[in-house]
Amino acid sequence: MPGKAIIQLPIIKVTSDENIRTADVLAIEEPLEIRLEYGPVNNRKVQNVSVTMRTPGYDEELALGFLFTEGIIKQQSDTNTIEHCFIACAENKENVIQVSLKEDVIPNLNNTERNFYTTSSCGVCGKASINAIRTVSSFDKAALAENQINSEIIYFFPAILQTHQEVFADTGGLHASALFDSSGELILVREDVGRHNALDKLIGAALNNDMLPLNKHILLLSGRASFELVQKAAMAGINIIAAVGAPSSLAVQLAEEFKITLIGFLRGQRFNIYTQPQRILLPKYEDSY
Amino acid sequence: MPGKAIIQLPIIKVTSDENIRTADVLAIEEPLEIRLEYGPVNNRKVQNVSVTMRTPGYDEELALGFLFTEGIIKQQSDTNTIEHCFIACAENKENVIQVSLKEDVIPNLNNTERNFYTTSSCGVCGKASINAIRTVSSFDKAALAENQINSEIIYFFPAILQTHQEVFADTGGLHASALFDSSGELILVREDVGRHNALDKLIGAALNNDMLPLNKHILLLSGRASFELVQKAAMAGINIIAAVGAPSSLAVQLAEEFKITLIGFLRGQRFNIYTQPQRILLPKYEDSY
Repeated sequence: MPGKAIIQLPIIKVTSDENIRTADVLAIEEPLEIRLEYGPVNNRKVQNVSVTMRTPGYDEELALGFLFTEGIIKQQSDTNTIEHCFIACAENKENVIQVSLKEDVIPNLNNTERNFYTTSSCGVCGKASINAIRTVSSFDKAALAENQINSEIIYFFPAILQTHQEVFADTGGLHASALFDSSGELILVREDVGRHNALDKLIGAALNNDMLPLNKHILLLSGRASFELVQKAAMAGINIIAAVGAPSSLAVQLAEEFKITLIGFLRGQRFNIYTQPQRILLPKYEDSY
Repeated sequence: MPGKAIIQLPIIKVTSDENIRTADVLAIEEPLEIRLEYGPVNNRKVQNVSVTMRTPGYDEELALGFLFTEGIIKQQSDTNTIEHCFIACAENKENVIQVSLKEDVIPNLNNTERNFYTTSSCGVCGKASINAIRTVSSFDKAALAENQINSEIIYFFPAILQTHQEVFADTGGLHASALFDSSGELILVREDVGRHNALDKLIGAALNNDMLPLNKHILLLSGRASFELVQKAAMAGINIIAAVGAPSSLAVQLAEEFKITLIGFLRGQRFNIYTQPQRILLPKYEDSY
């Protein structure tokens, strides 16, 4: 259920010709606290697991996607209810969401401090960090059917995404994650001020639609590809990621390790393939590789 | 001291005319664990306070800037040494940095869980969240001298920044924070895969140069302006922020509350002023406001 994602504010627009008082549309950024309720009926526990700065809307999907991509829950059916809730000091119910797990589900909270304050003596250290940080995907890659897509279809992804971003395009301030099938059809799109939130919302929606693993789809990222986004995609069984922006070194390293095809700088009729190129069907040119 | 910020990797470049094997330059993304050592000599404690995904280089500034903008320490002189260190399981010394505080300095670790797992019953809730989340600036705004800048000078900021991003421009994957004076001279610039890290590095460098409060400078952000960036800028006494990208709603709200001038969409010879326009000297046109 989409919430209020944009707001109009008065501004002064300054150009070399004039200064005018007008209005601008901004992406809303608000904190969301994700709370987890779990344990046997006679001993339920409630724990705050994350506070994220997000654009309101699709909060249930965000919470579900976050818990899944962080490895805290294993599937949609681990959850009972996902609801906004009042807490003692809260003035605004919309900024707190509680995920209630089924009685017999034990959440994996061991990993959850990896991005946050760590109490272990290990923390993050070089090669070990990748092991400590990455969450292991629930899907056995080798067992999943392969995926392939024609390069000419990929060219159209950003333009197709843009036609579905009409409202948010005004703000210029939102990241998008979109899911395409290999025929180039847009299946799902979610947007947020935080790129990790946009992807968590997308994966939460896919979980609700029982679409996982997403090994026959292609993930489009409207911006850069970071380690964190590749890790979240891997959790959902995604094996082709196309980013409009640049990838980071660790994103490429993780994609290679997880055998994910990573595309960057997808703009106009061109892109770069950083890893696992066999999934991209390229036209044969003379003098090409 | 700059570290290795970029890496060259083999790629396949796909265009509508050809597919060629070539090389691409990527921004390096690696985890950095920031550890704090504090307490009396006979009872020193070591605590991990953050793990951030950053581009190596200027790690000492990043650690110093982070501790300051999060309100954990109050000034540069609170610190004794800031050094990369091996920890028990570490394979790579470069990814762990330890900040040793002077014996009589008590770090403020109360606020430090705000972006992370919260144990309080409060967490984040609507209006209260802004109070809970924001760190209070050490500087009394009212007591600081005012700042003003001519709009025509601001137009040149992005172009000047670009000439200082030659190496990193290749990657297309780095955020920059830059500090200008009101005559338009570039004073400092720092870059990182994480926009909050770029700003922490900049503020860390300014702390080392005894430049705070930065109430006579202008901060340029290469991308969007989020709540978190405005909060960090406020901690350093910055009162004019110009972003190349869009601001979020909460960034505008916080800027207004802290009486910071916030500019967005600074591109070509134009920009928008979202808050506190009195610091921007505009040419007078007929029919203008």
